[in-house]
Amino acid sequence: MAELSVRSVLVTGANRGLGLGFVQHFLRMPKPPQWIFATCRDPKGQRELQNLASKHSNLLQCVGSAEVANPGSIKAAAAKVREHLGHSGLNLLINNAGMVKSKMLDAETLEDMTETYNTNTAGPLLMGQAFLPLLKKAAQESPDSGLSCSKAAIINISSIAGSISSFFGWEMIQATSYRCSKAALNMLSKCQSLAYKEHGILCVALHPGWVQTDLGAAPPTTVDDSVQGMLKVLSTLSEKETGAFLDWEGNVIPW
Amino acid sequence: MAELSVRSVLVTGANRGLGLGFVQHFLRMPKPPQWIFATCRDPKGQRELQNLASKHSNLLQCVGSAEVANPGSIKAAAAKVREHLGHSGLNLLINNAGMVKSKMLDAETLEDMTETYNTNTAGPLLMGQAFLPLLKKAAQESPDSGLSCSKAAIINISSIAGSISSFFGWEMIQATSYRCSKAALNMLSKCQSLAYKEHGILCVALHPGWVQTDLGAAPPTTVDDSVQGMLKVLSTLSEKETGAFLDWEGNVIPW
Ligand SMILES: NC(=O)c1ccc[n+]([C@@H]2O[C@H](COP(=O)([O-])OP(=O)(O)OC[C@H]3O[C@@H](n4cnc5c(N)ncnc54)[C@H](OP(=O)(O)O)[C@@H]3O)[C@@H](O)[C@H]2O)c1
Ligand SMILES: NC(=O)c1ccc[n+]([C@@H]2O[C@H](COP(=O)([O-])OP(=O)(O)OC[C@H]3O[C@@H](n4cnc5c(N)ncnc54)[C@H](OP(=O)(O)O)[C@@H]3O)[C@@H](O)[C@H]2O)c1
Repeated sequence: MAELSVRSVLVTGANRGLGLGFVQHFLRMPKPPQWIFATCRDPKGQRELQNLASKHSNLLQCVGSAEVANPGSIKAAAAKVREHLGHSGLNLLINNAGMVKSKMLDAETLEDMTETYNTNTAGPLLMGQAFLPLLKKAAQESPDSGLSCSKAAIINISSIAGSISSFFGWEMIQATSYRCSKAALNMLSKCQSLAYKEHGILCVALHPGWVQTDLGAAPPTTVDDSVQGMLKVLSTLSEKETGAFLDWEGNVIPW
Repeated sequence: MAELSVRSVLVTGANRGLGLGFVQHFLRMPKPPQWIFATCRDPKGQRELQNLASKHSNLLQCVGSAEVANPGSIKAAAAKVREHLGHSGLNLLINNAGMVKSKMLDAETLEDMTETYNTNTAGPLLMGQAFLPLLKKAAQESPDSGLSCSKAAIINISSIAGSISSFFGWEMIQATSYRCSKAALNMLSKCQSLAYKEHGILCVALHPGWVQTDLGAAPPTTVDDSVQGMLKVLSTLSEKETGAFLDWEGNVIPW
């Protein structure tokens, strides 16, 4: 299987967890992307990401603060990325930033619902809108006729917790506001796949597995294994998969 | 098939459309509920509902203003309902109020996403929380061992537009913020069904069909037919259906 090969990629929530894992894997590729853009809410004090950025200043650009549910900060990030890319487009947008409140159903509040939705669902919508011109440009530049991640793609990092039919782990963690936001993110991915297909942009929702980050509780999979698995899956995607909900091993997850 | 028989019911968004249709149908039943509670955002100037309330003052109570995404106004409505019910519980909570913004994907804003989600998804969560003590009481009062709408139930009026797999009507109306909110409402219904089963409360998501109200555009089904169909479906529900997504004719809709 061919390794994923992209000229440019942007990862949100890149300061820790899976986002940082994506950045590290892209940097370590035998043929790394020409541009790796990393966004995070608070670039100051993110030592690991800052160290990587100084070490790989030719590849990795931290495009400053980007609160994913803030239209202004997203637009500012898109403008910076456009500046760096010059006449080129953006191949791959990985909407990774996300949050969870691990509450029981009856403890959820309006604020939990709104904050989680804005971050996990509205954020990826706004990111898709702001980066659409750059994704379109990448698709137009590509000689490929079909859809692929090397051409132009939006990857929404969802969760099996957003699968209404599997209903994973309810006994362990209810987190209704999170489950609702990820079910909605799956719907958004489907909407984006239909709206952006004509522009040559592939869109999928991807479950990273149950991974050892600040978000999970003693889960079985390492960030390295999860990211490696996801990148392998991304390298195989074509127009057949656009609009799908897949896990880090390439299995289709039911809605 | 037995007609739906409940002692008490509450309908949100009862001033027009399907909500008003529910109220009218309950009033017209050969054996109407002892208490019909109607909430709406702005009870003033809702002539049709006010007329019904004066005509059937022994049955129909307009429990004042209830903005479904406002925790304070929901709690106030719950307190009023509790006062009316005295020592009885509430059998049936119909979360009907809802809104849509018919925009193309790229015109959706953070405000559209938040407002639609708060109304269509967070509203039903908060209503469920606020009325839980009254629903539990109704379940405890009931001699039935299983689950049913005559005992205690939450009915979330969803939409086939929230089905990620059917993906109904995309060519006609994109309305991504609405689709996301209804997919999330389906997830909420599933969460409520699991959390509230032990209390004897049935929960389903119900698609009313494509109905002639202010919300649809020249749809084929009348409010009367839709409400009649939905009430027939409600009369048949048991623990087998809790957590399901059904339409007004009783068909299961895929997530
Ligand atoms: N770990 C798992 O088992 C698992 C399973 C299923 C799905 N996921 C999904 O995987 C993605 C990454 O999660 P993770 O496990 O790597 O979690 P994590 O270690 O907690 O990292 C979350 C990242 O998202 C960022 N973020 C949160 N809210 C944000 C906002 N409003 N604006 C911008 N950035 C924001 C965080 O930034 P700060 O550092 O500034 O907070 C952080 O960079 C999430 O979408 C999550 O839902 C994870
Ligand atoms: N009609 C259809 O074809 C169709 C199809 C699928 C699903 N549905 C669903 O059916 C339900 C009823 O819709 P409908 O067709 O009867 O629409 P409608 O005629 O537009 O009525 C909507 C009702 O919801 C109320 N509402 C809206 N936002 C509210 C808020 N924040 N707080 C409290 N009340 C609020 C409205 O009150 P105001 O008068 O104060 O605005 C009105 O009473 C909705 O959940 C809708 O999504 C309808």
